[in-house]
Amino acid sequence: MIVPIELAHAQNITYDITIDALPQLTFDTNVVVVTNPTVAGYHLETLLSHIHATKLNVVTIPDGEGYKTLETVENILNECFEHKLDRKSLLIAFGGGVIGDMTGFTASIYQRGIDFIQIPTTLLSQVDASVGGKTGVNNKYGKNLIGAFYQPKAVYIDPAFLKTLPPREFAAGIAEIVKMAVMFDKNYFEFLQKSDFSDTETLKEVIKKSVELKAWVVNQDEKEAGIRAVLNYGHTFGHVVENETNYTTYLHGEAVAIGMVMANALAVELGLFTQDEADAVKTLLENASLPTDYVIKDVDDFYEHFFLDKKSAKGSIKFILPNGMGNYKMASDIDESVVKKVLQSFGEKK
Amino acid sequence: MIVPIELAHAQNITYDITIDALPQLTFDTNVVVVTNPTVAGYHLETLLSHIHATKLNVVTIPDGEGYKTLETVENILNECFEHKLDRKSLLIAFGGGVIGDMTGFTASIYQRGIDFIQIPTTLLSQVDASVGGKTGVNNKYGKNLIGAFYQPKAVYIDPAFLKTLPPREFAAGIAEIVKMAVMFDKNYFEFLQKSDFSDTETLKEVIKKSVELKAWVVNQDEKEAGIRAVLNYGHTFGHVVENETNYTTYLHGEAVAIGMVMANALAVELGLFTQDEADAVKTLLENASLPTDYVIKDVDDFYEHFFLDKKSAKGSIKFILPNGMGNYKMASDIDESVVKKVLQSFGEKK
Repeated sequence: MIVPIELAHAQNITYDITIDALPQLTFDTNVVVVTNPTVAGYHLETLLSHIHATKLNVVTIPDGEGYKTLETVENILNECFEHKLDRKSLLIAFGGGVIGDMTGFTASIYQRGIDFIQIPTTLLSQVDASVGGKTGVNNKYGKNLIGAFYQPKAVYIDPAFLKTLPPREFAAGIAEIVKMAVMFDKNYFEFLQKSDFSDTETLKEVIKKSVELKAWVVNQDEKEAGIRAVLNYGHTFGHVVENETNYTTYLHGEAVAIGMVMANALAVELGLFTQDEADAVKTLLENASLPTDYVIKDVDDFYEHFFLDKKSAKGSIKFILPNGMGNYKMASDIDESVVKKVLQSFGEKK
Repeated sequence: MIVPIELAHAQNITYDITIDALPQLTFDTNVVVVTNPTVAGYHLETLLSHIHATKLNVVTIPDGEGYKTLETVENILNECFEHKLDRKSLLIAFGGGVIGDMTGFTASIYQRGIDFIQIPTTLLSQVDASVGGKTGVNNKYGKNLIGAFYQPKAVYIDPAFLKTLPPREFAAGIAEIVKMAVMFDKNYFEFLQKSDFSDTETLKEVIKKSVELKAWVVNQDEKEAGIRAVLNYGHTFGHVVENETNYTTYLHGEAVAIGMVMANALAVELGLFTQDEADAVKTLLENASLPTDYVIKDVDDFYEHFFLDKKSAKGSIKFILPNGMGNYKMASDIDESVVKKVLQSFGEKK
């Protein structure tokens, strides 16, 4: 199945997201595949047997968010120069979000921009990172602070690559899928409730729907000025959870699952969401083996952490909340006392 | 006088190039000025007295092409983070082409793209680098190999900044102006023949016309696939001259002047240009204190150098030649023997 992506903000930028077994791909140009040792160990042989190019080279970079730096990008650039890529050459990102973000960024600045293709191998990158054109790296000041908006020429999503994914990482991808459903599509949420994610055909449907929703959002707001912020549902709370646990206890998607449960509690408190709806989301997350409990040790401290997020101006936090199943509300005028009351319900039981 | 720039390739990208005394500029945001010690020494006080911003900081980077590196860009990025620039902040490039290229590139990747403004202070950057959106840095593999196409929000060209420019650098800018006239506009060439470049009003007219021509070219070919290559008139030969003299004898514009004289000789040989036209170009360049003579020591060696240019595929050189005054011809099928005969005429006199 194919999801065509057309970007409203720029002429002539269209590409297809193919969700299926990886087809044979032929390129009349030099190609460099960027991957990491983990993905390469499992799947590089499969990938290379599907790619036919004038010249084909593989660049392997270390695995992990810690290597998502400008230094690694410079290493990839240097390898591309060594392999004599020119302006017609192609990069292929073969891995998860880190590989995709860095390969896309590299492509955007190599000789002022060459083509790249994404073949994402994690559920999170298949449903989330493969749409939107956000590329970049981290530095000591924060995450994704250096980068570019740059679109791939094509995206190939093959669920077969997920078979070697650790179960926790698979679940983290489900968290982002649930997020899209709760924010935008009640029918999709109900479909997820009935879905068996271990069934490949079901999984393809689920991925397709999530990709379509993300594309719809991005298309309305390519530069994240408005509706794209809705994709941060669960993230405002989740970021604090990640930060309080030093980014070591939870995967990002797991923290987002906890964050959605917290956001839902706030929505219930504000009369935007019923307790039954909040419970349904929690059950769906738990059925996907995602964490939903977190003990807030110090409510005041947790609240202060909201303001440390570089993206929110001091004094105003924008909460992204469900407004009935499948609808969202952006609220930046919620009383501190209301928020703290909800946080208290996650506090240590006396 | 204002030259409006509208880019055909992308929706919503328009900006003005203002050619006049620098106006008072007010920005409701944080601003960082990027400049070098030379320009700052002469003109920073003037610039700062014209800028009003929420917060105004200056980042100074070392002067010279040798510092046009990814490392310097990373230093600028870090300074921007230290000054807490956000997505609404603004960079101002205040200097020549090196400052413009690096500031534009930094703006393109800071938090995935923030606004920047160009205030070019050399004639070359006023007429050439301020239009086209080419940003980037050099590395050990070559010039401008890492970068982005990224447009400024506005360009302010004030000829007053040229008063402190060394005469050779001023002349190097004239070379690029002559290039535009010979390739695209006979009337403009005749206007240049009559012009006194030391007169500010004349200079403004000359700059305006050159900027308009460059904008017209870029608009037809934003990604340099076709007509933009015409801007390389004089460069194919000039690059070899620069290379043979280790980039130390001539400024780029000076080598381009020599290169145009050589290209014209080839055009005369091919019957595309009259000897009178070639002489007129040479006289104009010499009146602007540009070099037009160069002794080719080894014709075969000079010819081989054409193929070392990374941009030309082995076996085909595209010569950009005048085809009558104000018209161009791109020729990639010129016999080696014809080219070498012309090169021989620049050889050592026996």
